[in-house]
Amino acid sequence: MKNPVDIAVTGAAGQISYALLFRLAAGEFLGEDQPINLYLLEIPSAMSALNGVVMELNDCAYPLLNRVITTDDPNVAFHNVDYAFLVGARPRGAGMERKDLLECNAEIFSVQGKALNEVANKNVKVLVTGNPANTNALIALNNAPNLKSKNFTAMTMLDHNRTINQLAEKSGVKATDIKNVIIWGNHSNTQYPDIHHAKIKGQNALDLVDNDWFIDELIPAIQQRGATVIKARGQSSAASAATAAIKQMRLWALGTPDGDWVSMALLSDGSYGIEKGLIYSFPVTVSQGEISIVQGLDINALSLEKMKITEKELHEEKEAIKHLL
Amino acid sequence: MKNPVDIAVTGAAGQISYALLFRLAAGEFLGEDQPINLYLLEIPSAMSALNGVVMELNDCAYPLLNRVITTDDPNVAFHNVDYAFLVGARPRGAGMERKDLLECNAEIFSVQGKALNEVANKNVKVLVTGNPANTNALIALNNAPNLKSKNFTAMTMLDHNRTINQLAEKSGVKATDIKNVIIWGNHSNTQYPDIHHAKIKGQNALDLVDNDWFIDELIPAIQQRGATVIKARGQSSAASAATAAIKQMRLWALGTPDGDWVSMALLSDGSYGIEKGLIYSFPVTVSQGEISIVQGLDINALSLEKMKITEKELHEEKEAIKHLL
Repeated sequence: MKNPVDIAVTGAAGQISYALLFRLAAGEFLGEDQPINLYLLEIPSAMSALNGVVMELNDCAYPLLNRVITTDDPNVAFHNVDYAFLVGARPRGAGMERKDLLECNAEIFSVQGKALNEVANKNVKVLVTGNPANTNALIALNNAPNLKSKNFTAMTMLDHNRTINQLAEKSGVKATDIKNVIIWGNHSNTQYPDIHHAKIKGQNALDLVDNDWFIDELIPAIQQRGATVIKARGQSSAASAATAAIKQMRLWALGTPDGDWVSMALLSDGSYGIEKGLIYSFPVTVSQGEISIVQGLDINALSLEKMKITEKELHEEKEAIKHLL
Repeated sequence: MKNPVDIAVTGAAGQISYALLFRLAAGEFLGEDQPINLYLLEIPSAMSALNGVVMELNDCAYPLLNRVITTDDPNVAFHNVDYAFLVGARPRGAGMERKDLLECNAEIFSVQGKALNEVANKNVKVLVTGNPANTNALIALNNAPNLKSKNFTAMTMLDHNRTINQLAEKSGVKATDIKNVIIWGNHSNTQYPDIHHAKIKGQNALDLVDNDWFIDELIPAIQQRGATVIKARGQSSAASAATAAIKQMRLWALGTPDGDWVSMALLSDGSYGIEKGLIYSFPVTVSQGEISIVQGLDINALSLEKMKITEKELHEEKEAIKHLL
């Protein structure tokens, strides 16, 4: 049996983590021959609920689950960890302005960034799921000067999966027949799901589906999908977010398949004219744990405009919390 | 790619199903080369929530998820299905007597038994998780005269896993070092978790742990584990129940490992003097989909007494609903 890998999960008593932890323990992330230790972080008021989750994890008698550590101290939670799923975030409360939301999350993620900087494995892969995910990731990485910026990504895999699904449904094919969709920008309702480069069974997607459908239906449907799910289910997406988190981290660890790419939000290096220093979602490939932004894609005027809208939002988010960077 | 198998899940918008469905779709049940169709049954008032769950399933773009059907009609939900997870049940409401609870569930499970009888694959494997699980399974099978009684089991795998975990924790070993624990009887607080035949790394468990601990701590801890989890987590066990459901159905489909057995509740054939015609949990092995009760185990006076207590409860449950059989 391999040595266990150390995985931290924050907001560990929350709904996304409840959907995530049991699947990590079952081997869905790194396979059925890879034991894991789970480091679970929560705020003090959620420790009882977290203990209940740990009881249930233990009650599964998982062969791969080597050890579970619970703590309210990020310096314990991130000690030597190889992977960190930053799931926990402060949700928007009643009467809270967007700026307040950004600020109180900025505080959480600056503390966690500092702790990661101090105690995590230097090759730690940090995936931020807690919203506003892109800017939270930016704060964490700015507080971790000893880590590389490429240790941090924010999650747009859920949006990527949603786009694949809707394109597959529209064109009557399977999800596996769809390749090369892109999510540009922020994991928010300004994101730009782009199918100009997408393939359906090897054919150009926009030769097979109507451009008006793409513009008038697909884009807003993906941008507003989270709200649509809440309306139907009465609760926000949890299991599908957990699925996407596992997939993003798995592809980051094990590599993307040949001939396809995925979308991840990471520190912009200026590719496609996007402002450096924002955490922006790009099409990426991964080989041996190293993420590369796909280069050289043709971007038409429509795409450029939409890429700039979501860039502008991220710029404004950064401005709102820049005193904390 | 193999042909899809058809899997029904009832109570599909509930918490256990929410923990179950995404893992079925990810391949945790029958493996990553087995596509599935999901037939999801709910009551009319839960269809909106169920549609939200289906949105999330679709948003995962699972390669193995071939088709999802939602319905409030058991004759649609069970049509030709190979596997049926009967998760949905009426929980005990305020002021409801145990007898009322048994009766209103009896109604649900007699309808579902009739539908399985009419439309399911004749080799369907029906796993009842919804409580009172044993007696619900009894009602379903009694309403399905064209199916074999061995098409039906009720779930005691969660109790089995819990016993393994607590024995492993007590003796400082891993869950995989524990074999041959037994859950006898009802999935209720009369159940008897028996470690007289259990092995810890090949040694007799009761040579390694104290008999008083077994009697005074382990047995009540397992009997009351559900309540302990609720107290800590604020909600009943869902993810660990889903894990156990997948494990029980997987072992039923694919067979138990050599040298070990598991616990499943199935129709008593009189083994160990247990009243025929009750759904009672026994140690079982499975080969090629056929369940066999492990025979010839020595049962001491203490075990016999505890096996009779839980048998008596099941007898009384059967009496309470016998006008519906």
